[in-house]
Amino acid sequence: MPAAPPAVALVLGDPAGIGPELVAKLLARSDLMGAATAVVIGDRWVLEDGQHVAGIRTAVREIASTAEARECAAPGVPLFLPTETARREDVPRATVTAAGGASVLRALAAGLDAARAGHVDALCFAPLNKLAMKRAGLRFADELHFFADYLGVRGYVGEINVLAPGALGPGELWTTRATSHVPLRDVAAALTPDRITDAARLLHRSLRAAGLAQPRIAVAALNPHAGEGGTCGREEIDVIAPAMREAAAEGLVMDGPFSADTVFLRARGGRYDGVLTMYHDQGQIALKLIGFERGATVQGGLPFPVTTPAHGTAFDIAGQNKAGVEALARAFTIACRMAGADGSL
Amino acid sequence: MPAAPPAVALVLGDPAGIGPELVAKLLARSDLMGAATAVVIGDRWVLEDGQHVAGIRTAVREIASTAEARECAAPGVPLFLPTETARREDVPRATVTAAGGASVLRALAAGLDAARAGHVDALCFAPLNKLAMKRAGLRFADELHFFADYLGVRGYVGEINVLAPGALGPGELWTTRATSHVPLRDVAAALTPDRITDAARLLHRSLRAAGLAQPRIAVAALNPHAGEGGTCGREEIDVIAPAMREAAAEGLVMDGPFSADTVFLRARGGRYDGVLTMYHDQGQIALKLIGFERGATVQGGLPFPVTTPAHGTAFDIAGQNKAGVEALARAFTIACRMAGADGSL
Repeated sequence: MPAAPPAVALVLGDPAGIGPELVAKLLARSDLMGAATAVVIGDRWVLEDGQHVAGIRTAVREIASTAEARECAAPGVPLFLPTETARREDVPRATVTAAGGASVLRALAAGLDAARAGHVDALCFAPLNKLAMKRAGLRFADELHFFADYLGVRGYVGEINVLAPGALGPGELWTTRATSHVPLRDVAAALTPDRITDAARLLHRSLRAAGLAQPRIAVAALNPHAGEGGTCGREEIDVIAPAMREAAAEGLVMDGPFSADTVFLRARGGRYDGVLTMYHDQGQIALKLIGFERGATVQGGLPFPVTTPAHGTAFDIAGQNKAGVEALARAFTIACRMAGADGSL
Repeated sequence: MPAAPPAVALVLGDPAGIGPELVAKLLARSDLMGAATAVVIGDRWVLEDGQHVAGIRTAVREIASTAEARECAAPGVPLFLPTETARREDVPRATVTAAGGASVLRALAAGLDAARAGHVDALCFAPLNKLAMKRAGLRFADELHFFADYLGVRGYVGEINVLAPGALGPGELWTTRATSHVPLRDVAAALTPDRITDAARLLHRSLRAAGLAQPRIAVAALNPHAGEGGTCGREEIDVIAPAMREAAAEGLVMDGPFSADTVFLRARGGRYDGVLTMYHDQGQIALKLIGFERGATVQGGLPFPVTTPAHGTAFDIAGQNKAGVEALARAFTIACRMAGADGSL
């Protein structure tokens, strides 16, 4: 555990969205700014625009390089590294533009560089717009695979969705899925024991990094009624159970497989810390109904913590000072917590 | 529309569960008993036991055959046809027994006979226990297929789940699925255009029978993000869209396919009357999270309305007068409504 509070790079997100105004609000949260050194990375005009929209102008200390972050750290004072990633006239508010996408890609790369160099302990980014990033040349399905490629990560990576406390239990609920953007027709074939143990380990390690000594994970089944003892699908017996036995042998605490229509209900009330689902919609149907937008996303499997709010750029309300900072505050807090723990992911 | 209020057969359900006490509570609801002639079918000791547990003893008029139901109908007075389907000592409370299963199968058959003969207009049954019925010799996966076989129905049948008003919108939300107890591996192959149009027609006709002149139906996609324009699965384009075009040509009002993790959210606030899902867990994950237990189930595709509460026999609270009558009241009300409309299913 670092002696000083952790340093967390904070990227403003797509300049056209609600990111800048949310960061302005976050910087004014003295409780959070006291727990870590926030290192804002982005264009001066974008930060000022966000502060103008939010009606809050928190004093920041400018730095010339993230290498100065540790020495310039002072309790409660956010640092700011001004960059030049976009011109104001190229990124009109509430609009998908290649310029907006390029801006956030450059700021994210600067944040990744800073973390890789050890200047900061974690990265938290305000909402980005995937379409804008694709227009700017992003070659990957999502930002996680951009991060993994940029950092040369070859191991298993996966998005972890964190439901806010109160959404389903007294604490957070962390969830990830063994398969993701796979056509439903191909899900069963894609679901191998290795895939499941990889996802289980990712969830377990991430929860450990967030401070839970012994996370309890509920595992979803693949088939209706968990396969009804093999009469309605055999993956529970042939694929999921062997994977769970292997994970248990490594010390993971897992229960299931539970039928998918009850697994989130079983996790209610804090009985589990994590839920491992087998495919995309199995988790997403539940998460969106429960109220995912107040939660956060952890980019799992990277060499340092990377987090972001669950919601998007919300162009419909961008620039109107209507967006709530709750989800970004949660993402920032999780990054701090994961940076402050033993850091192993 | 019948000149007199409709007659609805009311079966007590498994004697060991909460059914009898719920029926006792229902019979005391003068608002509901005024809207239809309830024709209770079951053993005298079962009804009396339910009344004892509920602490309510509503006067009923005994009949010797359901053929007397119409002539004996008097506003607000439930009728009772005593039958002998089980001995008290063979059906201990809160226990799965073949005797309990046999009891409910016989009472259900009597109700189906009464409806087929035109003695009643609809059937509503209190919770049964599938395992008990299987121990009693049920050869089908569920009661719906028993009903269809018993009645010689050869057309498409399907369970329709009705969410209570307030669960997701100001009114009810009716949902059914194009495939049901199918292993996930086989869902895509089982999902044909015919299957989807059959299910869509069933939902449309049932909503019409329940009194909606022009039901609006939201259709779920099969693949993540609704297939992302064919890049993550082609069933939306190749299977679901053609089925929706055919249904639209018949006058059905349907929108979609919407990605499965948003389809129930889109139906919020009464924007749709029905949701058609593609497979079991797609609907069930949402329904159970939203609060299915206050809702009801319509056994769709039978020649007359058959309904039941969404919850089960609740052995954990049977005999304790803790069970709420809300879901049974909804099931009964839907049966009345469907019987009172033009009756075509």
